[in-house]
Amino acid sequence: MFISFEGIDGSGKSTQARLLATTLTDQGYDVVLTREPGGSKGAEEIRALVLEGDPDRWSPETELLLFTAARRDHLEKTIRPALAAGKIVICDRFADSTRVYQGSTRGDLLGRVNALHETMIGVEPDITVLVDIDPSVGLSRAKARQTTEERFEDFGVEMQIKMRAAFLDLAKSAERFKIINGAQSLDLVAKDIASVVLPHLDSPQQASA
Amino acid sequence: MFISFEGIDGSGKSTQARLLATTLTDQGYDVVLTREPGGSKGAEEIRALVLEGDPDRWSPETELLLFTAARRDHLEKTIRPALAAGKIVICDRFADSTRVYQGSTRGDLLGRVNALHETMIGVEPDITVLVDIDPSVGLSRAKARQTTEERFEDFGVEMQIKMRAAFLDLAKSAERFKIINGAQSLDLVAKDIASVVLPHLDSPQQASA
Repeated sequence: MFISFEGIDGSGKSTQARLLATTLTDQGYDVVLTREPGGSKGAEEIRALVLEGDPDRWSPETELLLFTAARRDHLEKTIRPALAAGKIVICDRFADSTRVYQGSTRGDLLGRVNALHETMIGVEPDITVLVDIDPSVGLSRAKARQTTEERFEDFGVEMQIKMRAAFLDLAKSAERFKIINGAQSLDLVAKDIASVVLPHLDSPQQASA
Repeated sequence: MFISFEGIDGSGKSTQARLLATTLTDQGYDVVLTREPGGSKGAEEIRALVLEGDPDRWSPETELLLFTAARRDHLEKTIRPALAAGKIVICDRFADSTRVYQGSTRGDLLGRVNALHETMIGVEPDITVLVDIDPSVGLSRAKARQTTEERFEDFGVEMQIKMRAAFLDLAKSAERFKIINGAQSLDLVAKDIASVVLPHLDSPQQASA
C-alpha cells in the first residue's frame, strides 16, 4: 500500500503524514515514512543540488529532469523495496507535486511533466491524501517555519491560490485522491485521514502474512 | 554551426575537437569549444554527481535522467547563446554518446533515451564527426590517461567493440555523421576532419556579418 500526502505549503500534510505513520505503526503495521524531493541517499543529494543556491540557476525544464531523477532513485532504493517487503509506504509529496508545481505554475510544462512520468516513473500511489487549506492560512503557517529551502511560498498568496486550484483540479482526475479539510484541529484532520485510509488496509496480521 | 565529436574512449576525439577549434579560430571564426557531460556551471555539478563516487550508486535510468538534465542546462546556458551569437560550437560528445553508452550498452534503454531526447532536448548537431578507431587501440590509449572519472573503459575490450559498433550503426542513420579514420597520425586525422567540416562553413567574414 503506497500512500502519498499532497497539498500546498503550510497545509499540514507533513505533520499529518507523520501522525498517520504513528497511528498505523501503533496498530501493528510495518510503515516506511518518506518524503520528496529526497527519500533516498542519492535523491537527497539531487534535492540539495536543486533547492540550495540561487533559485534561478536551473530552468523549469532542467529542474523537472532533476526532480524526476531524484524520484527514480527514491522509487528504486526506498519505495519499491518497502512495498515488495509488504510494508506500507507513506510519502510526503510525490508526482502530483511535480504536476502542480512544475506542470501548472511554472510555464506550460504539464505535457512534458506527464511524458517524463510515463517514460521514467510509471507508478501512482494507491491513495493520495490531499490536505486542503485556505492559501492565506497555509502561507502564514509556512512562513512561520525557518528553512533555507522552501521557495514557492516566496511567490506569495496568488501563487498559493493557483497551486491549491491545481491540486483540486488534479483530484478530480482520479479515484485515489481523498480531499481532507486541513482547516480543522490537528486531531480532527488526523481522524478524517485515518477514516479514509483504514478501510483500504488489510489487518496487520494479514498484511504481514 | 553546431559540430559534435563522437567516438569510443581513446579515439582521440577530444584532441581532434581542440585541434579543429584552433584551426577555425586561426582562420578567423568565433569558436566555442565545449564538452559533455558538463559544459556549463550547472551541468558540471551534475557531471560530478554522476561520475564521482561509487559507479553503481545510480541505476542506468537515473543516470540517464541526470545526463539529460546536464544536457538541458548545457544547451540553455552555453550552446544556444553561442549559436545565437553566430559562433561555431564544437562539442566533445553530445546526445549520440547517450544513445550509445546508455541506450545500446546498458540494458534496453534506447527507447527511453530517444523519448527523453525528443521531449527535453530536441536538438541535433549540424555535423557529427565520428572518430573511428580499433577498440583495443582506443582502450590502451584511454588506460594510459590518469583520471578518476572514466568508467566505460573499465568494462574491457568487449564493451569497447560493442560501443564502436553502436556508433557506426548510428552513423548510418543520418547525413550529419562524418566517419573519420582515427588510426592515422594526429595531423592526418585533423586534415581529414577539416576537409569534411570546412566546405559547410561560410567564410569568417560572412559568418560574422
